[in-house]
Amino acid sequence: MRRRLLLSGGAGAAVGAVAATVASGRSPDPAAPPSTVDDTGTGVVPFHGPRQAGVSTEPQAHAAFVAFTLHSGTDRAALGRMMRLLSDDASRLTRGVAPLGDTEPELAVLPARLTVTFGFGPGLYAAAGLPSPVAELPPFPIDRLEEAWSGGDLILQICADDPLTVTHAQRMLVKDTRPFAAVRWVQRGFRRSRGAQAPTHTQRNVMGQLDGTANPRDAALETAVWAGDATTLVVRRIRADLERWDLLSAADKEQAVGRRLGSGAPLTGTRELDEPDFAAVNAAGLRVMPDFAHVTRARVTDDRLRILRRPYNYDHSVDAAGRPDTGLVFASYQSDVERQFVPIQRRLAEMDLLNEWVTPVGSAVFAVPPGCPEGGWIGSALLS
Amino acid sequence: MRRRLLLSGGAGAAVGAVAATVASGRSPDPAAPPSTVDDTGTGVVPFHGPRQAGVSTEPQAHAAFVAFTLHSGTDRAALGRMMRLLSDDASRLTRGVAPLGDTEPELAVLPARLTVTFGFGPGLYAAAGLPSPVAELPPFPIDRLEEAWSGGDLILQICADDPLTVTHAQRMLVKDTRPFAAVRWVQRGFRRSRGAQAPTHTQRNVMGQLDGTANPRDAALETAVWAGDATTLVVRRIRADLERWDLLSAADKEQAVGRRLGSGAPLTGTRELDEPDFAAVNAAGLRVMPDFAHVTRARVTDDRLRILRRPYNYDHSVDAAGRPDTGLVFASYQSDVERQFVPIQRRLAEMDLLNEWVTPVGSAVFAVPPGCPEGGWIGSALLS
Repeated sequence: MRRRLLLSGGAGAAVGAVAATVASGRSPDPAAPPSTVDDTGTGVVPFHGPRQAGVSTEPQAHAAFVAFTLHSGTDRAALGRMMRLLSDDASRLTRGVAPLGDTEPELAVLPARLTVTFGFGPGLYAAAGLPSPVAELPPFPIDRLEEAWSGGDLILQICADDPLTVTHAQRMLVKDTRPFAAVRWVQRGFRRSRGAQAPTHTQRNVMGQLDGTANPRDAALETAVWAGDATTLVVRRIRADLERWDLLSAADKEQAVGRRLGSGAPLTGTRELDEPDFAAVNAAGLRVMPDFAHVTRARVTDDRLRILRRPYNYDHSVDAAGRPDTGLVFASYQSDVERQFVPIQRRLAEMDLLNEWVTPVGSAVFAVPPGCPEGGWIGSALLS
Repeated sequence: MRRRLLLSGGAGAAVGAVAATVASGRSPDPAAPPSTVDDTGTGVVPFHGPRQAGVSTEPQAHAAFVAFTLHSGTDRAALGRMMRLLSDDASRLTRGVAPLGDTEPELAVLPARLTVTFGFGPGLYAAAGLPSPVAELPPFPIDRLEEAWSGGDLILQICADDPLTVTHAQRMLVKDTRPFAAVRWVQRGFRRSRGAQAPTHTQRNVMGQLDGTANPRDAALETAVWAGDATTLVVRRIRADLERWDLLSAADKEQAVGRRLGSGAPLTGTRELDEPDFAAVNAAGLRVMPDFAHVTRARVTDDRLRILRRPYNYDHSVDAAGRPDTGLVFASYQSDVERQFVPIQRRLAEMDLLNEWVTPVGSAVFAVPPGCPEGGWIGSALLS
């Protein structure tokens, strides 16, 4: 507690220093090394509440999606023990407090808006002897799924504005999951650093596109994402063939996407949030928003059927020829996978020019149960 | 240019907002989503100058170390063309300007204190028909070097406070290197996010240790790191066996390191920067700083022989049993590898208790030539 107070003091002093700079009429020198701390390290997102954090939380800069396969014999009682333990770990880590078994407690002190979001796959319900509210996605003809990035009985979505915080939280949570489950896959991802852009600024993916413009906002968010206090999570690993994508002209890229690369505006508009006009035709009588464009295929007219995209970029490795293994850890939250995600993905699989340059290589679906109050644990209604 | 001005305007407004918050006497709510941008994205470190940036530059949060093997036939003339091209790319990217061949120019606008530091390995000098000022390190008995992480004719150390900036810069630079060289290895690493800690705060590595306390400071930095305007870079990949490290008690960890885990103070002191007293003995007549401790073995009494550690953490993957592949991308700058790095490493290899838990699996050495003025290029004195 003393340490946290000290840290808060430091952050306050830093803000004061910025204020002093402003008051003196001089703007900070961007070439100078960062001389102050802000609340990037000390920010706390409450773990407890009716809904899990990490869903409508403004996306943090760094994420680890960690999927597990339950050991055989991990039954409902064991799952309850596991979720008690992991919920306790998460409630501490998200406050900047070391979990009970933390072997590097010094690394726990900066929560950096850490959230730990738990999702249950079909296999977890089977192990608990319960009917599953989610099913694996149907196969799509564009899929080239790899076992290494697919499926999972349990997922932990670990997000924070600091990468060392994510690494430490991941390590502690994985250690405590070991008696119950094996790690199936880990996908690390990143967005722009905190403070680099306003959060209202839609982020670009590694292909240079603004990604997430059509996310539900405000009231639409409520009905599209939440079923009571629960939701569902789809994680897809989308590999981008940047080598071939880069052979396109900017105009061709814009036709494939249906948006301007610079502004993110639909081809019928001028600003990013302009509604695309799918009926508009050009002088030649052709639709301005091509039928095959990604935005045309992905469009959802009913706000309740939108999905909340919460994607992260990945940049895994480069081969000797300099070809990157890069793309998107696509993550979406929606109240109902069947009604919301599947129809969109079907339309994209059927005819989306972007399919030429992106390939789903991983896929997994999870139910995201409600949150828990202080002293409670995630999944208690199900597993008690 | 217009875009950059707009961005600067945004940053100024954000600082103003912080100032207003302070003036109102309310401290910012750390749980609230980040509502402002600061200069994390827009910060510029000058590329041009007598010395290359990225050495004494306050370490940025994210790094990619990209090593290349020259294609056979890449001679001095070709090397000159390559370095002209890469210097031009770097001079633009570091200002937030897309390089000439940039296929995703929208990703270039946030430099985030980007630096691109070029190092030449022994093979580059051989290809140019020149004597090499650096040689591969002698073998150390503790080494378990893997080809996949070792050697290289050319290195690009790409650092920025934003991970997407690093990814984009890496991609553009790798593309332009292709006619001349193949990618040999890429090591990505991270430190605490900008703003999470004051830069004067020594960073912790994944083992929880404060790492870099003994770095040369101020005047000592000048003589230890620079030979005129040149320096050398050693990159070692140090795998940490966290599973076994975590079996130790905190007291045993402190004995192995020679410092307190919490404060980073030497076992004979109370504060991080206290000079260790290697002569001090305890009641039992034993040295308080054990002979086998890392700090005892690594100690350098002559300031001119210190090395500038500029390490990054890595966290590569997790196996099914939950064991991480994690550790340190150790990077050090020193004016003379033979005189400074090698003796320290010899003493550590000989007897350093930490060797029980850390293993060098990669190693490479590069000469870092002087910087260049605007319109010039790195390596011109050598390759013209």
